Amino acid sequence: MKTHTLLMPLDMHLHLRDGVMLEQVAPLSAYTFSGAIVMPNLVPPVSTVEDVKAYKQRIMAAVPNDYFEPYMTLFYKNYDKRFLESVKDHILAIKLYPAGITTNSEGGVSSFNIEEMRPTLEAMSELGIVLCVHGETDGFVMDREAEFMSIYEMLASNFPNLKIIMEHITTKAAVDMLERYPNLYATITVHHLLLTLDDVVGGMMMPHHFCKPIAKRPEDKEALLKVALDAHPKVMFGSDSAPHPISKKEACGCAAGVFTAPIALQLLCEIFDKYGKLENLQAFVSDNAQNIYGICPEFKEIVLEEREFEVPAIYGNVVPLYGGKKIKWAIQSVE
Amino acid sequence: MKTHTLLMPLDMHLHLRDGVMLEQVAPLSAYTFSGAIVMPNLVPPVSTVEDVKAYKQRIMAAVPNDYFEPYMTLFYKNYDKRFLESVKDHILAIKLYPAGITTNSEGGVSSFNIEEMRPTLEAMSELGIVLCVHGETDGFVMDREAEFMSIYEMLASNFPNLKIIMEHITTKAAVDMLERYPNLYATITVHHLLLTLDDVVGGMMMPHHFCKPIAKRPEDKEALLKVALDAHPKVMFGSDSAPHPISKKEACGCAAGVFTAPIALQLLCEIFDKYGKLENLQAFVSDNAQNIYGICPEFKEIVLEEREFEVPAIYGNVVPLYGGKKIKWAIQSVE
Repeated sequence: MKTHTLLMPLDMHLHLRDGVMLEQVAPLSAYTFSGAIVMPNLVPPVSTVEDVKAYKQRIMAAVPNDYFEPYMTLFYKNYDKRFLESVKDHILAIKLYPAGITTNSEGGVSSFNIEEMRPTLEAMSELGIVLCVHGETDGFVMDREAEFMSIYEMLASNFPNLKIIMEHITTKAAVDMLERYPNLYATITVHHLLLTLDDVVGGMMMPHHFCKPIAKRPEDKEALLKVALDAHPKVMFGSDSAPHPISKKEACGCAAGVFTAPIALQLLCEIFDKYGKLENLQAFVSDNAQNIYGICPEFKEIVLEEREFEVPAIYGNVVPLYGGKKIKWAIQSVE
Repeated sequence: MKTHTLLMPLDMHLHLRDGVMLEQVAPLSAYTFSGAIVMPNLVPPVSTVEDVKAYKQRIMAAVPNDYFEPYMTLFYKNYDKRFLESVKDHILAIKLYPAGITTNSEGGVSSFNIEEMRPTLEAMSELGIVLCVHGETDGFVMDREAEFMSIYEMLASNFPNLKIIMEHITTKAAVDMLERYPNLYATITVHHLLLTLDDVVGGMMMPHHFCKPIAKRPEDKEALLKVALDAHPKVMFGSDSAPHPISKKEACGCAAGVFTAPIALQLLCEIFDKYGKLENLQAFVSDNAQNIYGICPEFKEIVLEEREFEVPAIYGNVVPLYGGKKIKWAIQSVE
């Protein structure tokens, strides 16, 4: 049987939520991942040292039996340097949301006035705090990411020493930016390597394929696949796994988010194997992130095997991507 | 109070379904419309003289108290001339579906081989039977209608005496075609004058805004609005009102279709009034269709008034567009 071993897989963009949902989903990530960057868009958002510490404790309490490192983040606001110094040892990055652009982002940035943001972003540059960005404008849904490229250009050129991560990129426009600024990096989800808008509204309307940014055109998916399969050194895996209870997905006014945490590595093996690029998966799911963020996760070894696996129809009250469907790779062992 | 009178409104593209659903929705159309072109995509499709007659009888039985003319259609297949002669007095048009492109279209045309279609289309030209077309390819969802333009060109140029209706157009590409071939006409729905893809998946995912063809880009909506508001003589109102039970809409794998029949005229008044074009609404909802199809509906007069009206949240088991929301115009009287 064909197997593939991954060391210290990292999920560089993860939503763990809080409370009962946290307890439900955190163990699923902790089972196969060494660590994950945990998004701060709780209600209210994670924005103080106390918030960060308390949230990290709640996460650790939810995953008692596995080694798992939650890399904490802060919700972007214009913070002063003194505060950033006090918080820097507790976080790996600050996550910037344009106001209202996705789940629980109402307190985000409402106008990209570079001079208002300068003190914060310069302090972050000096302190080596990474800036993670949800890069979408409030324009037409298929254009939102491409329209945001000018803001990435403004940020990247004004703050050349700031590491900026274009989160969950979905377009060829974003892929092309990787070559243009040395300080721009990107995460890519597994669902954006699999889906286009056709899978969301091309046949029936599929709520479990609905996320933000929305899956784009076939040529966009191809561009993402190319840099992911090549394990371009500036791209990392970030699942953007975003659980919502089924009552909020299979409903009028379905919430945005695809839940992939428990099947992400299996699907990645399937994709990379399909294209004959399994040898690059280690870099995509761990090594690139270690280099970009300068982190050294503790040892964890996952062996996957090529074997038909039926994705559970539901985990608790959360329907995963491909729930009830068969995929081609499965977890063999975790050490 | 501002009022507006419409004479003999016609819905040139309507799904009445069958059985219990027919009984539920047909009276809603019959209340305000003089007549409607009734789509033949039942299961099995309407494809014989007997089918047409029997379906018309069932429709008439469902609307006993109102004057309402169901203009019948046949599901397109390659029919011989003799058959078309026998059916021509019972139908106003033949509706062509690409195979599998929308609800109950599995028996449609799977390849547009012009020579195979020629005998049927020539006979239709000679007999004056109109060809109504659902113009979408099986390509990427946002490109399907634009990609179909080459098929419209092939049909329009090969059969210059055949009246061809581009049904429920959603793109600037289709609007532009109106000027290029004298025998190409179009229907436009009310929901495509109101919605873009943003209203389907730009915020939350909205199943009651999901239809085929899917709502497109803002510039497409603008192009549709322009020819509708001007009552371009080659465009007609066709609601494409397509009822599905709520259980098939608010579900994983939501069916395509927007239900507008009972609120279409009210919404059209609101739109045309907003743009100061109420004087063109009569042509858009009736006169153009009478000219294009050469039909003379019996007298019916609808008076609408500018008054806040809360759209019912549900009609039987069917949720309408804007269910539970307030719109600005209402029916005052029907004679």
